[in-house]
Amino acid sequence: MGDRILLCRRAIEPRLDHWTLPAGFLEIGETPADGAGRETFEETGARVEIGDPFTLITLLHVGQVYLIFRAKLLEKTFGPTKESLEVRLFTEKDIPWNRLAFSSIATTLKLYYQDRTAGAFRLHQRALTKPGQSRSLRGYLEF
Amino acid sequence: MGDRILLCRRAIEPRLDHWTLPAGFLEIGETPADGAGRETFEETGARVEIGDPFTLITLLHVGQVYLIFRAKLLEKTFGPTKESLEVRLFTEKDIPWNRLAFSSIATTLKLYYQDRTAGAFRLHQRALTKPGQSRSLRGYLEF
Repeated sequence: MGDRILLCRRAIEPRLDHWTLPAGFLEIGETPADGAGRETFEETGARVEIGDPFTLITLLHVGQVYLIFRAKLLEKTFGPTKESLEVRLFTEKDIPWNRLAFSSIATTLKLYYQDRTAGAFRLHQRALTKPGQSRSLRGYLEF
Repeated sequence: MGDRILLCRRAIEPRLDHWTLPAGFLEIGETPADGAGRETFEETGARVEIGDPFTLITLLHVGQVYLIFRAKLLEKTFGPTKESLEVRLFTEKDIPWNRLAFSSIATTLKLYYQDRTAGAFRLHQRALTKPGQSRSLRGYLEF
């Protein structure tokens, strides 16, 4: 929304009480974009327009792949849910970097601000091993 | 390779004897791009440089998501493998449209030639239900 980003403070484990972008696991019968919209609504109560895929993040140590989309908040209706203690819009300077739930979220937010500064968004691929660590994608991928 | 595309004729079920792009399931500890490179080598013996993600295809009826990458053949070393009866380069006019193994592959090849004609490749999202059928992504996605 404008230059602000919607984050939620987790009401559930893992990483209870830490901030995250809305995300979750895909269900049978939905596309990744469907799942992103559904999870956003479940965790924040917000209706969003899902945009382009923005980060493709593999968590190597747990065998999970996340595809995170950019999205536009359609109306300013959001708030706490069963899954979120608090839902808030953050400007860049207010992002709670030390209280983020997952390295995939920190990585995505950093890339978002980097692309925004550069004036163009593109799909980024990252492989993370443990929180904070990343490896390049076998050298043959631009990275 | 040039304007040709590498396809393999399946040596295994499902869709034994039908043509496909190299593809398969991701293993723990690899990224989607890693998996694409590994599957290509396993099925064709070819070493490739994995490029940008090109189609993101959800098979709604089986709960599978495929991310298919463009790739460049690094050397003309390929041939039959345990998984492929035959491995061949095809020009557009020779693509065996009636002998393709999966609707995801037909969709990807059509989009590839469409983008090539348009002069620009981008990531396409599609949801397929049964072979040949597709649905739009909830209207709110450009499609």
